[in-house]
Order: sequence, then C-alpha cells, then structure tokens
Amino acid sequence: MAEGNVFRRIHVYDCRSQKTNKDKLLETSGLDYNGFLRLLRKTFAIKSHETFVLATTDRTVLKFDNFEELQDDSTIHLLQHEDQPLVVATEERFKFLPHYDTLIRSGMNEYYASEGQNSLPFALAELIDNSLSATAKNTGVRTIEIRMIFDESLGKPALIVLDNGHGMTSQMLQNWAVYRLSKFMRKDSDQERYVRPDPVPRSLNSDISFFGVGGKQAVFYIGDSTRMISKAAGCPDVHELILSKEDFERKTDNKEDIYTGVIKNRMPCDYSHVKKNDERFLHRLIEEESGKESFTAVVITGIFPKHIAFIKEDFNVLTRRLTHIYHYYIHGVNGKDMSSSSTISDPPEIEILINLAEKPPRCPRYVNLREVETDMQTLYINSAVDTFEFKASIAQDGGAVEGAIRYHPFLYDKETYPEDPDVVHAVDEDDDDNESRVLHQARGNRPIFDCFWNGRLIPYTTVSEFDWCAPSKGAKELAECYNRISGVLFTDDKFPVSTNKLTFMELEMKLKHKDTFFTRVVNGQKQRGNMQKEFTQWLKNCHEKWDKQVQFLNYKEIITRTDV
Amino acid sequence: MAEGNVFRRIHVYDCRSQKTNKDKLLETSGLDYNGFLRLLRKTFAIKSHETFVLATTDRTVLKFDNFEELQDDSTIHLLQHEDQPLVVATEERFKFLPHYDTLIRSGMNEYYASEGQNSLPFALAELIDNSLSATAKNTGVRTIEIRMIFDESLGKPALIVLDNGHGMTSQMLQNWAVYRLSKFMRKDSDQERYVRPDPVPRSLNSDISFFGVGGKQAVFYIGDSTRMISKAAGCPDVHELILSKEDFERKTDNKEDIYTGVIKNRMPCDYSHVKKNDERFLHRLIEEESGKESFTAVVITGIFPKHIAFIKEDFNVLTRRLTHIYHYYIHGVNGKDMSSSSTISDPPEIEILINLAEKPPRCPRYVNLREVETDMQTLYINSAVDTFEFKASIAQDGGAVEGAIRYHPFLYDKETYPEDPDVVHAVDEDDDDNESRVLHQARGNRPIFDCFWNGRLIPYTTVSEFDWCAPSKGAKELAECYNRISGVLFTDDKFPVSTNKLTFMELEMKLKHKDTFFTRVVNGQKQRGNMQKEFTQWLKNCHEKWDKQVQFLNYKEIITRTDV
Ligand SMILES: Nc1ncnc2c1ncn2[C@@H]1O[C@H](COP(=O)(O)OP(=O)(O)OP(=O)(O)O)[C@@H](O)[C@H]1O
Ligand SMILES: Nc1ncnc2c1ncn2[C@@H]1O[C@H](COP(=O)(O)OP(=O)(O)OP(=O)(O)O)[C@@H](O)[C@H]1O
Ligand SMILES: [Mg+2]
Ligand SMILES: [Mg+2]
Repeated sequence: MAEGNVFRRIHVYDCRSQKTNKDKLLETSGLDYNGFLRLLRKTFAIKSHETFVLATTDRTVLKFDNFEELQDDSTIHLLQHEDQPLVVATEERFKFLPHYDTLIRSGMNEYYASEGQNSLPFALAELIDNSLSATAKNTGVRTIEIRMIFDESLGKPALIVLDNGHGMTSQMLQNWAVYRLSKFMRKDSDQERYVRPDPVPRSLNSDISFFGVGGKQAVFYIGDSTRMISKAAGCPDVHELILSKEDFERKTDNKEDIYTGVIKNRMPCDYSHVKKNDERFLHRLIEEESGKESFTAVVITGIFPKHIAFIKEDFNVLTRRLTHIYHYYIHGVNGKDMSSSSTISDPPEIEILINLAEKPPRCPRYVNLREVETDMQTLYINSAVDTFEFKASIAQDGGAVEGAIRYHPFLYDKETYPEDPDVVHAVDEDDDDNESRVLHQARGNRPIFDCFWNGRLIPYTTVSEFDWCAPSKGAKELAECYNRISGVLFTDDKFPVSTNKLTFMELEMKLKHKDTFFTRVVNGQKQRGNMQKEFTQWLKNCHEKWDKQVQFLNYKEIITRTDV
Repeated sequence: MAEGNVFRRIHVYDCRSQKTNKDKLLETSGLDYNGFLRLLRKTFAIKSHETFVLATTDRTVLKFDNFEELQDDSTIHLLQHEDQPLVVATEERFKFLPHYDTLIRSGMNEYYASEGQNSLPFALAELIDNSLSATAKNTGVRTIEIRMIFDESLGKPALIVLDNGHGMTSQMLQNWAVYRLSKFMRKDSDQERYVRPDPVPRSLNSDISFFGVGGKQAVFYIGDSTRMISKAAGCPDVHELILSKEDFERKTDNKEDIYTGVIKNRMPCDYSHVKKNDERFLHRLIEEESGKESFTAVVITGIFPKHIAFIKEDFNVLTRRLTHIYHYYIHGVNGKDMSSSSTISDPPEIEILINLAEKPPRCPRYVNLREVETDMQTLYINSAVDTFEFKASIAQDGGAVEGAIRYHPFLYDKETYPEDPDVVHAVDEDDDDNESRVLHQARGNRPIFDCFWNGRLIPYTTVSEFDWCAPSKGAKELAECYNRISGVLFTDDKFPVSTNKLTFMELEMKLKHKDTFFTRVVNGQKQRGNMQKEFTQWLKNCHEKWDKQVQFLNYKEIITRTDV
C-alpha cells in the first residue's frame, strides 16, 4: 500500500469547533505525515500548544505509519480529542462501483436444476434467444449454430454460438458489455430505438431480449472467457471484444479501471492477432467470415468441466431440451406434425444446428433441431388426436393468453400420453395392484400446461389446471379422460418473466384471477358458449371417438371390502 | 450534445497505408471540424491534394456537424476512402460501466410468486437475513423490528428495518453499496476477514449473507429510495447514506459519475439534516439512537403501492409467512412446541417485531413473530405425535443434511395433517364420493419436505419424498399413513441456493443421488439399521399407537362395480 508520494488529495473537516462545517481539500503529494501536519497547522491555523487528533471517518487515529495508507479523495476529521462528538455533521464522498462479479458471477446461482434437469440448456437458451432476436429480420434462412469443440487437436475446449443475424456495430458491441442496459434504456444515438413488435399468433415475435443481462449471465455460467466477434451489414469491418475473468482480476490487481475494455476493428478473415496455439480453432472460424454480410459469433472458452461432461454424456438430452424450448420457432405455430408433409412457408426458416466435435476416432455429431423427434412438444403433438383451443383475457391489464389442450387417447391396452424420455420415474413400478394405478397413469399428478413467453418455453413455470378443465369439477364418468390431456399456453411479454427466464412472475395468479375470462376458439373464431360445457363436450367427444377400450363403464363408486 | 470546445482527446488511426498501426491522441479543445482537419493534416503529413475520409469505428463519416458529437476518448479512422478495408487492425478503448439498473432493478424480476404467494415476504426476508447476521454475536436479546409507517400525519409511507446488531462503520457502509461485493471478496483492510462459522444443530448459524446483492435487491424491490443509518460499536458517530432511483437518474442526466455517493457522519440523535416535512417520521427514529451502542436502520421510501396494499390487507399473511421462514431462529432447534412451557435458553433470544402504523382511528398493529401460532411450522409441530429424525450424507462433496419427519395421526373422524391457512383450495370440494378422496386427504400430492438453508426457509424448494419413505415402495397396509407425514430438511451453505434465495440449486438431485447415504438418528445417535425398515417400523408404530380410528383394515383391493 505504501505508495509514498503519489498524487493524493485529502478532504479535511475541522470538527474542533461548532462552526458550520466545510471541508478543505489538501494536496499531499510529496508529503509524509509530518509534512502533512505542518500543512494542516497552517491551513487550519492550529496554535502551536493546541492538542488535536486526526482520524478517519471510521475513527482510526492517523499516525505516521497508517497515514501512507490513505487513498486519494478520502475524508478525515480534525478533532480536539479522540472521542469528540461531531457537533456538526460532515460529508464524505465515496465510490461504489459494482464488483466485477456482477458480470462474472451473474449466472452462477441463477440457472438452477429442478426435477433432475441439468441447467446448461437454460444458459445456452439465452444465447439462442439473442440469435433469434438478431435474425428476426433476415430475408433468407435464419441460421443459429452451436459448435462445441472438445478436440485437443484444434485447441482448448470451446463453445461457439454463431448466427447470421444483423450483427453488431462497434457501438452495439460496447453496449452488449454493459450489464443491465436493456433495449428500453438505450439512447437514441446508439442504434434505432426499440419498437414493440406487432402481435403475431402464439407470440412467435423473436423479440426475446429484455433485461440486458442474459448474454453475460450465460457466457460466464458456461466458461470464464468470452470473445465476441461481430460484423454489421453495411460496415466492412469485423469487431472483436474479449471479456474474461482473468482480465478483471488483473485490472483489479493493477488498480486499473475495471470496466474498461478494448475492441479490435479488423478486416474479415484476418486472424493475424490469434497467436495462441490453443486457440487454433479460431482460424477456421475467422476464415469463414469471407463473404458474410453480417454475423455474430460468441466464443466461450475456459468451459467448466461439469458442462463438458454433460455435453459429451448427455448430448441427446441437450438437443431434446433445446428443441422443447424452441419447438414453435423451429416448427412454426402448429408445431411438428409428423403425419403432415407440409413445411412452414411464410416466415423464413429457422435452422438451429448443434455440432459436437470430439477428438478422433470419436465421430463429430451434427443435429439439426428440426429433426429431433423426441422432445416433449413433438411427443405431445404426435400422440394427440384432437385439440381444444382457447384464449384467456386478463381483466386488470388487458393481457391475453393463447392456449391449446390436446387429447392423448387410451388405445387398446395402454395410455398414449407421452412420457418425458429424460425423467426417471422412481415410483409406481410395483404399484399395479392398488387403487393409485388408475390415477397415476397418463398425466398423473403432473400439471397440464407448459408455458411459452414470446414463443419460447419458460421451463419451470407450469400451470396445473383451470376450473373448467379440472377433473374434480368435471363429470365423474370422464375422470380418466381428464388425465389424458396435455396443454400449452402462449403469452407475450405483457406477462413478465424472471431475469433468468426460468419462471413467469405471476402468470398462474393472473390466469386464476376471478376476473380472467376464457373463450373457446374454433378455426380462429371465438365461441360464445360456456367454457366448462364446451370443454366437457369436447372431452366427451374425444373419449367416444378415440379411446379404443373403455375401461370403466358407468363408473359409480368404489366398494371397499373390509371383510377380507 | 454540442458541447463545443470542451476538453476532448481523440484517438486517430492512420489506416491509409499498410504500416503497423499505432493511434495518435489528438487534443481537440477549442477546435471545430476545420481546425481539427488542419491539425490532422499536420500530424499525419497529409498532402494537400490527397483525398481522405474520417470515420468513426462504426464507419459513420465525420463532417462538420457530427464532429461535435464525438465523445472524449473516442477512436476514429483516417481512411483513403469510405469503403477502404482495415488492412491493419485497430484497437478502440471503451467503457462498459454496469447500468444503474443493476442496483435499481436487481430485485424487480427476482422475487416471483408461486402457488399464489405474494413475494414481498421474500424481499423483507433479505433484510431480516442481514439483521440476523449482524446480531449473531449480540450478548443480549437480538432485536429486529420492521416498522411500516402508513400514516400521513407522520410523513410519506416508509418501511423501516431496525436491528441492534454490530452496525456498520463508514467503510462497511460504503461496501454495503457495492453490488456483488460478497463477504468472500472483501479485502483484509476493510473489516475482519470472513470466518466460516462452526457447525451447529440444524445450521442455525445466523450466517445468511452470501452474494453481496440481497439488501440492494430487496430495498429497490420494495421502494425507490433507501436511507441506511448505522452506528458501529466503539465509534461515536452515526453514518448515513441514501441511494435512490432519482439520484441515479439525475447523475445520468448531468453526466456525473453514477457510482459516487455521499456518507453523512454525525452525532447520534442529530436530525438537523432531515428538513423535508414528509420525512418527519425520521425525527423519532433518530431520537431513538440515544444510548444505543450500535444499530442499523434501513429506511425505505417511495414504496410501491401494491406492497402497501398487500401489507394493509394481508398483514396476517405477511407475519405468518415470515414466521414460517424464520421459525427455527425464533423458536430454537426444536421449534415452537405449544405444549411445553420450556423457553429457549442458551443462545440469546431473537425478537422479530412487526409493527404497522396506519392513520388513526386505525389502531397500530404489533406482532412479535414468536407469538404467531398459525405459521406452517407451528402447525406441523403441534399436530405431530411423533418424529423420525435422520441424517443424509452426500458422497461427492461431504455435504450433510439433517432431517425430521413428523406423524400427523387420523383422529376419530378426521385427518390432523395441517392445512396452509393461506392457500385456497379450489379443488376437492365436491369430491367425497369418488376414490380420489382417500388420496387427497392429509398431505395429498404435496411434497413431504420443506427445506431450510443455514436455518432459514428456502421457500420454493420442496423435496417430495425419498425412496425409503415413498408410499409406492412401502407396505400396502400403511398406504394412508404415508400420507400423514410432513418433513423438514436442514442444510448449511455447502448446498448453494439461487441468488434470490427462493430455491436450492440442486439439493434434490444431490439427495436423490444413488451414493447419498441416509441414517436414522435417535436421541442424537446414528442408528445402524436399514433406513427403509427403520422408517416403516416407525410409521407402523405411529399408526398403531396414534391413529384413533382405523379406516382400512387389511386393505386388499378395489372392486369396481361395472354392473350398476
Ligand atoms: N447474437 C447477437 N447478435 C446481435 N446482437 C446481439 C447478439 N447477442 C447480443 N446482442 C446485443 O447485445 C445486447 C445484450 O445482450 P444480452 O443477452 O446480454 O441482454 P438482452 O438480450 O438485451 O436482454 P436479456 O437479459 O433478456 O437477455 C442485446 O440486447 C443485443 O443488442
Ligand atoms: N443490518 C445490517 N447490519 C450490519 N451490516 C449490514 C446490515 N445489512 C447489510 N450489512 C452489510 O452490508 C453487506 C451487504 O448486504 P447485502 O444484503 O446487500 O449482501 P450480503 O448480505 O453480503 O449478501 P446476500 O446477497 O446474500 O444478501 C453485508 O454483507 C453486511 O456486511
Ligand atoms: Mg439476451
Ligand atoms: Mg444480505
């Protein structure tokens, strides 16, 4: 600490008397404690016989040895004696710059695991969200690639998210690094002001940036260093920026400004600055820039071993989870219907490609999420025989929710309600001889609805049921049928989500509010009928038309034999 | 923006040739565009007939009118022509200070509502956490008061959290304001280094500060301005600090440093600086400082109307929820046993007092959380007839969890398993004539375990069951008994929680890991027996000893009458 005679100004309050207090700023460069005392006596006209004490605002008395430790711009009190009260208050300026953990640790305790799910997909989703937003106005195919390079012959482990979206100018890239600078706060000069997208079916508006934290949370959850590489259309230069834990630590140690960075502006395909051998994989990535009008690549290194292990061991789980989250972006408003050969036409297609490169002889793996057929949404859609659509209007704030319920019939000897391939069910194995069997089949106690926000899944919010589709309120003879339904809810960002995008803030409360109004929708037309009646009728029809073996006919009651 | 001739330095890269690129720093004070051009021609020896273009790194060409807008320290390119590629890369320094929403909005989308719960208690809990930590070493009673002043005759609405803990020195108060400065990161000189507390039963270690964000998240979730008032033992001065949304906005508008604040150092009881009439309530608070060795008061104003409404309308819900969260801190390791008259002795008592002052004639309300008898933990403990204690050891990291399961018997004609007084059950009302009745009684589908971290409840993490206490694995004749148990789990901070302290990161995954080892504990002694056997035996004993009417005797199967 003893930096000796560096430039240092100290605010001194003369607290000895009861006069109004104003501090004096003393320049201490070149002064040791005794020199400072001389300056002080002169400045405050301290008489030679007068005793006094100098203390920090924490009442640490200043002496020859700790005087050196005073920081520039600090405040001290000139007192008659050590315990003298501050008859007149003093004011002390201080800085409270957020610690760099604001960026580095922002994702650490955010993406948590529930129901046995690994939380890496939620971090990757933040990066896919950004790419979806950036490619929203593409005229051609929107391509989002996740490349996971775990092949030492190419360099250290790296995870790259690459999109062909609008890219970022240097200024936009600078803004990217600003924690909590949301699109709503950006100043006019920076880039075009945020315009709320028009309503679209199922809110597939690609407008998924919200808080100004997602990207930073995600990259530092995955690894400890990130290189952003981006090029905006119309500008011939590529911009590059590195944020890393190591840099932050070095700047702290050197007492440099923490939140100062450097952007590199360069020609496309110029990788002359990438000299480290363990970053060889960057050469190919940068060579690919040739001919691209605009793009963004997020290159994460220092990847935490547990993520590498998960990606290698559970690659299928990862691709399934991501497909579930973006199902309707990938497959369009109606989702993946495997029986129909129709392809989505109108909006340009979204390709989300996942590539894992491991050290040979292990083969690289390529998955286009469009081809995944075992994500829950695909399973729901393709085991359903009929769909009941509806809308909910929230009275208080005019929010609207679109919903659909699907029927998964009983066929011959089994329920067709799909099981999540990644959930291990510990219970119910040896259960087939007691009464819980009937209830635990099909959906069981699981909630009916998965919930989507601006078209993407919010994974930890589910809605169990509404009054009009609750088994307990419905017709007794349809009891099993209530167990054969799954559902989806779609909202736009009028329904806020938590910063980590894992939960809605209060969707269920709003939907279950007594003034929330539900209407059935048939072929896009709202129906007038009573919701519960409409639903019960639909359920009954499904039952009669699709269930292929009636388990209970005119089911009435249970008789318990207490006599055996 | 046109600030004209202010002090401004601009980095210029000469990109016209292929030489190694180094920028030159040009001082533009007093220069308009033409003056700057002259300086530039001279500096870079631009020949008089030579054409060139000046552009920002976003490739905006600089002209007379936009030249003024360049910020101090910005970087520009000197190019042969507009589209010239950057043959040699350039580097551009920039700042990326976190936006002040980092503090202001940090709690906004963090405390979410689930299962119909209002989320205000979770924000208040963060402030109580801080007070618990601060009072941990008190020798006398630890007092934490929440005062809610909604009486216009005293000033604007305010919420105060006041404790008699160790208080903060000026330096500690400065650190309080630093977002993400956790106790683990604080430097030696600031205050004593963090020492991990010794293990104590049920981890009631009062060590609940963790991330360096809780207080800030909480206060700005509740209102838009916070005054911290604190006095540390041994220092005669009181320190005060205000953080407010308004200040941040003003500083931004004036282009002042965002993260600079002022601490007021003053005598106790001196409220001469509180001049605003709508802050009159502060006079009394400050007068109370007399004779206090140390304390901290968090004074929140600008309280959002929805919180005021909730506090007024649901005061009982609020006090109940808080009691549930801190039950074991308030009542000691065994919780509130209303049948025993014993009081907690050894560690000093914790008093958490909630006071709501509304405009007369409405009476002020005072609740000591110790007297609340309708929080869930109190209900569980006092309807239980026996307790099964156990420990779980996590193989991977040596983490340990203490647990207890309680038995709530069937008495004569009804289950005694307690209902949450604040949860409205929409279902099961008209349900008593079908088979779901039996299952939905008592606990029903709800998870068995509430989970506590360092002694305080983590409200949204519950654990449903373990193999050895799962009804599906247990003896059939005890089926209803499995439904009559509630449970608690206690962990220390070896099990991380999310930043908002609403969920554990992966408690359930760790507990359900195949290598996790459970042992029964009787009178503090670990037992050797097989867990499932021990538990089943205990459950059987409970059933035989306590259930006062056996509903099903030798229950065997359901016979469904398909003939009616
Ligand atoms: N792939 C990308 N292409 C173009 N711009 C991007 C890309 N990723 C991020 N950005 C820009 O960086 C900004 C910050 O991204 P970040 O994910 O950190 O926050 P956000 O998306 O604004 O909000 P949220 O917290 O909801 O994610 C974005 O708003 C966007 O302007
Ligand atoms: N009532 C209090 N008395 C004394 N010190 C306090 C009090 N409240 C806060 N502090 C100090 O301020 C610091 C910051 O508090 P804050 O709640 O923002 O974060 P934290 O408690 O460190 O971590 P967490 O995010 O887990 O709450 C605390 O670590 C503590 O040193
Ligand atoms: Mg984002
Ligand atoms: Mg705290």
